[in-house]
Amino acid sequence: MAGSTFGERLKMTTFGESHGVSVGVIVEGVTPGVELDEAYIQVQMDRRKPGQSSVTTPRKEYDKIRILSGVFEGRTTGTPLCIMLDNTDMIPSAYDDLKAMFRPGHADFTYEKKYGIRDYRGSGRASGRETAARVAAGAVARKLLERRGVSVLAYTTEIGGIRCETFDADAIDRNIVRACDAQAAVRMIEQVERLAAEGDSCGGIVECRIGGVEAGLGEPVFDKLDAELAKAMLSVGAIKGIEFGAGFQAASMRGSEHNDQMDAGGFLTNHAGGIVGGISTGSDIVFRVAVKPTSSISTAQRTVDADGREREISTIGRHDPCICPRIVPVIEAMACMVIEDHYKRQTALLD
Amino acid sequence: MAGSTFGERLKMTTFGESHGVSVGVIVEGVTPGVELDEAYIQVQMDRRKPGQSSVTTPRKEYDKIRILSGVFEGRTTGTPLCIMLDNTDMIPSAYDDLKAMFRPGHADFTYEKKYGIRDYRGSGRASGRETAARVAAGAVARKLLERRGVSVLAYTTEIGGIRCETFDADAIDRNIVRACDAQAAVRMIEQVERLAAEGDSCGGIVECRIGGVEAGLGEPVFDKLDAELAKAMLSVGAIKGIEFGAGFQAASMRGSEHNDQMDAGGFLTNHAGGIVGGISTGSDIVFRVAVKPTSSISTAQRTVDADGREREISTIGRHDPCICPRIVPVIEAMACMVIEDHYKRQTALLD
Amino acid sequence: MAGSTFGERLKMTTFGESHGVSVGVIVEGVTPGVELDEAYIQVQMDRRKPGQSSVTTPRKEYDKIRILSGVFEGRTTGTPLCIMLDNTDMIPSAYDDLKAMFRPGHADFTYEKKYGIRDYRGSGRASGRETAARVAAGAVARKLLERRGVSVLAYTTEIGGIRCETFDADAIDRNIVRACDAQAAVRMIEQVERLAAEGDSCGGIVECRIGGVEAGLGEPVFDKLDAELAKAMLSVGAIKGIEFGAGFQAASMRGSEHNDQMDAGGFLTNHAGGIVGGISTGSDIVFRVAVKPTSSISTAQRTVDADGREREISTIGRHDPCICPRIVPVIEAMACMVIEDHYKRQTALLD
Amino acid sequence: MAGSTFGERLKMTTFGESHGVSVGVIVEGVTPGVELDEAYIQVQMDRRKPGQSSVTTPRKEYDKIRILSGVFEGRTTGTPLCIMLDNTDMIPSAYDDLKAMFRPGHADFTYEKKYGIRDYRGSGRASGRETAARVAAGAVARKLLERRGVSVLAYTTEIGGIRCETFDADAIDRNIVRACDAQAAVRMIEQVERLAAEGDSCGGIVECRIGGVEAGLGEPVFDKLDAELAKAMLSVGAIKGIEFGAGFQAASMRGSEHNDQMDAGGFLTNHAGGIVGGISTGSDIVFRVAVKPTSSISTAQRTVDADGREREISTIGRHDPCICPRIVPVIEAMACMVIEDHYKRQTALLD
Repeated sequence: MAGSTFGERLKMTTFGESHGVSVGVIVEGVTPGVELDEAYIQVQMDRRKPGQSSVTTPRKEYDKIRILSGVFEGRTTGTPLCIMLDNTDMIPSAYDDLKAMFRPGHADFTYEKKYGIRDYRGSGRASGRETAARVAAGAVARKLLERRGVSVLAYTTEIGGIRCETFDADAIDRNIVRACDAQAAVRMIEQVERLAAEGDSCGGIVECRIGGVEAGLGEPVFDKLDAELAKAMLSVGAIKGIEFGAGFQAASMRGSEHNDQMDAGGFLTNHAGGIVGGISTGSDIVFRVAVKPTSSISTAQRTVDADGREREISTIGRHDPCICPRIVPVIEAMACMVIEDHYKRQTALLD
Repeated sequence: MAGSTFGERLKMTTFGESHGVSVGVIVEGVTPGVELDEAYIQVQMDRRKPGQSSVTTPRKEYDKIRILSGVFEGRTTGTPLCIMLDNTDMIPSAYDDLKAMFRPGHADFTYEKKYGIRDYRGSGRASGRETAARVAAGAVARKLLERRGVSVLAYTTEIGGIRCETFDADAIDRNIVRACDAQAAVRMIEQVERLAAEGDSCGGIVECRIGGVEAGLGEPVFDKLDAELAKAMLSVGAIKGIEFGAGFQAASMRGSEHNDQMDAGGFLTNHAGGIVGGISTGSDIVFRVAVKPTSSISTAQRTVDADGREREISTIGRHDPCICPRIVPVIEAMACMVIEDHYKRQTALLD
Repeated sequence: MAGSTFGERLKMTTFGESHGVSVGVIVEGVTPGVELDEAYIQVQMDRRKPGQSSVTTPRKEYDKIRILSGVFEGRTTGTPLCIMLDNTDMIPSAYDDLKAMFRPGHADFTYEKKYGIRDYRGSGRASGRETAARVAAGAVARKLLERRGVSVLAYTTEIGGIRCETFDADAIDRNIVRACDAQAAVRMIEQVERLAAEGDSCGGIVECRIGGVEAGLGEPVFDKLDAELAKAMLSVGAIKGIEFGAGFQAASMRGSEHNDQMDAGGFLTNHAGGIVGGISTGSDIVFRVAVKPTSSISTAQRTVDADGREREISTIGRHDPCICPRIVPVIEAMACMVIEDHYKRQTALLD
Repeated sequence: MAGSTFGERLKMTTFGESHGVSVGVIVEGVTPGVELDEAYIQVQMDRRKPGQSSVTTPRKEYDKIRILSGVFEGRTTGTPLCIMLDNTDMIPSAYDDLKAMFRPGHADFTYEKKYGIRDYRGSGRASGRETAARVAAGAVARKLLERRGVSVLAYTTEIGGIRCETFDADAIDRNIVRACDAQAAVRMIEQVERLAAEGDSCGGIVECRIGGVEAGLGEPVFDKLDAELAKAMLSVGAIKGIEFGAGFQAASMRGSEHNDQMDAGGFLTNHAGGIVGGISTGSDIVFRVAVKPTSSISTAQRTVDADGREREISTIGRHDPCICPRIVPVIEAMACMVIEDHYKRQTALLD
């Protein structure tokens, strides 16, 4: 592999730079005969697209996907789907200054060191734009999971130090930070707007809950279900940590507290986050990811250019002061890919 | 794949159940011509083996490895190494009671659900014993990394709520909990002994620091260096979370704080933990993992048997009341595998 | 995997049906910093495109490729290349009759059985059109091989029972059957035209010769260089056999004849076809493939429809009465992918 | 990968040199709950073991396998099986002369060039002994195929220019060359004995017939069933070619002859060899492989040593003058692995 492919039996391969012609994805291993159209996928694209809320620039006609293969007369054929998005609304000249400067927090420096050449317009391949392709693939996986009765739901639980106190599923898509607590959301939005006005940004925490997975899903040893979810999540640029169930809190718990005991009705607690020994327990699969503050800020920062000379940089342009709301559908997409892929591996084993 | 193989260019495949005949590993893709002997690997095995400290049962002659292939006249040949450990000192009858009961916190229930059959002696394939094979493979990777000047060091930073306040590399292998702070170690050991006496267990946090990796290592997009380290670490049964650099703390930082600025001498901070965009920055790679409290405790707990009847269970036997000290070499082994594998991928790309 | 991806370190994933919107390919693992433009790839596309010779319908503007990603300012960036071809000049209505009938020699029946659904326009995914995407990827590999001084040359050696008696490299692209013997080519063309006039088709043999590969390339055991070349070639729909060096003739040779002896100047013969134990010997790598006669013929044939009723079918339309000349660049493309991929694996091993 | 692993969902990884401590295999992805014991596997081992017929040296107690993991109380558990064979009856000193000489037809030269180091005792990793591990894994696959009603049968059809005229399945295991024609077998044996007496060897052709596979098995595009069988077969050191159905004869057939027409009862012919578009047709899968004459002969041959000096070599020792009878179970083993693996991929797709 060379980094742009994910999955074993349900597999996606993405391509495209943020300011190239297009970005897209090939999805392989899709069950044949399943009804699927562009509108179904577009719903998820619209949840991730830029400019969707009042706190960011309004734009239109963004991220319209096209299915180029693998669907015939409204149903999947079992052959690879290519889903394409054209890049529009680009102002490459805005990036001329960045040609030779490494933006703090961005992959400019590391890509330069790895490849010795880079597409300096936007963030090239390292841009969050690449995740649009993942959301398209994830929507295909979600379609397949629906047949199994599996649900995947992510939501913001913390932004800029403000935490959700309650969980209200209905609130999530009704507030522009996608928090699960409408009241906390109000304060989070204020916080984000204040930091944006100061030319700064903030991070947060997103939780994901996967329901409807019976006990027994997941591979042992290296390909544990939590290990693969961890890889999937850490493969999203802004994510710096993940924990399952009690997570880091487990470090200060006793075995007698942390162990999930059972009675005839099932597990009495879910400190494990729904996975033990890499295999699902039948409880909800629950994990949280740490989202770093957006790297692009207009506050002046110190950096160097390609020749090693010290420079000062402020990123002017349209950027999200907090990426949590737009990362939510990306988390869901990655989770959908992992879960559906593992179902397919499981049936292969038992066959 | 089917879960028991890890890596792309440097690859390991493990086998063996905790109470079967043997456990072992095949390591593929080893650079030919490198000096390697059993003694070099044994050093790491001895750091992981049971019964090594005064707080646990003394045993001897444990985990003596044998290299069955891939080494000729003291040097690697580039062909697969099979490294084998025989299982000894087993008391299978001790597990008769567990035949039909699911131990809380263990994978008994999930394996039963996945496979419909399981080797109920010990934890079968889900046992921590499987990680002995990983440590053997990791020692081979470490040998290859030495040639590159790369060092991999893990150590306990927290146990049962007690945290290290200082970092002293020399202290680590001089205290039986492998903590990086000798004074904290004393209190940690007291805590572990107290809980053990109560028939309980505790968790902790282990940090890993990888030095000597220049900027530019790692794959983009899905196979990011942090993503693969995350998968590697979460594939260890007792680990429930991972964070890089500032990690979960990043969620409450501002962009202007979290971004690692540069001057002519390099990065001024390392909140990223040495990886940006999935590629190494040249700073130390730093991550922490959450270790859950040992599941096997003698305190009575509620569970069910294979027929769904409610039962009470206490795990009698020899168990580590805190797994941190023995998980340290496992963390290092997995990190060695990931880093050496990525070096090999990188040279393939540039070729 | 799910069948549409090929290669380990240099990897291609193709998509697209013969009568869908587009076909294309993502090429991953390309060395960064290499000069590459669309014109270079187009040369190979033009060698494979339909309608290029007087014996087939003249068409124009075929198979113009576009590079959508992975190239920046005329050089590869090390990120995935997406290369796209739009499908044009389709007359889907011509295929209405085929909706429910299985054409002899085609994959209509087997795709129906595998997937339970199929894109019956043309041959969908099983069409030779898919190989256009391979030729595009192969051109990228060829570019990388040029840097190594490796040459890959395929040519027709037999068509419809007529064999080449001589080898003239210059002759190959000067005759429309791409034979290595200009005189034999004249008779081959007559033969093909005669069969075409009779509504029939014929097969042939294509040989491939790879020069400039030093001794030591290839993996041992399962991924032998000849094993992977065999897989690559048999993955082309019309190919029914492959042999290396003396090939099937080896079955009636003695060891003392077949063994390639050496003197100080190197190997005295090349019965092995340049590969021993799966690894290159430094002699030219030589293999031949058996190309079946084109399945689409206008002669009436017996078949059944989707309901199992007996039918008679004649394939009207534009088809190549012998596919050898157009399969030559496909063979070369697949060989280029295999060889460049193995170079990258080899450097990874030795690193 | 690094060459020693084969398969996707059912996977084997082999290790071991011909004169090392042991050879063995890990088989991953085995369906759990299937009855399996060592005796079942031993049957196939005994068909491949050396010294089994009157034309070769009698030996005993060869190739006794042990299952070290993955089977519990007589049934597979779904976890990796490690199957081990110890190397016995080795006379390493016999190989001292070969330390610095490259035997014609052997991989001594190519391994030296690839790795820069090699285990010169026997043929190290390139030895036919490695195929013993494959036969063990293949027996596990065969067990799984029995449940599906799939049969895999290979047999010699030609040795030293003598061809079978009839097909008698019962004859195969009753003659020591495993030919499908008892009368031809008599002449084959005479031929082999004559060549052996002359210090020479001969090649042959082995055919394989797979019955009971319904239409629809196989992956499209690159992982075609015939492509993967071709790779599997060419990965066996002595095999230099493969053809399916009409094979190389297809090169001189017309489309109207080669196309397999259908009536209500199914296909009227099987020129395709049971695979079209990479997917099974429901007819028997039929292919033939070209087996080269054994490279080890006592006739003097020209070669060079590691310093490039010209030398003369005659291989003294115990060698098979024709490898066909012992390659038959290896062909079957590889075919079993490919077919069972594809069944598992197919169920994953449809799930």
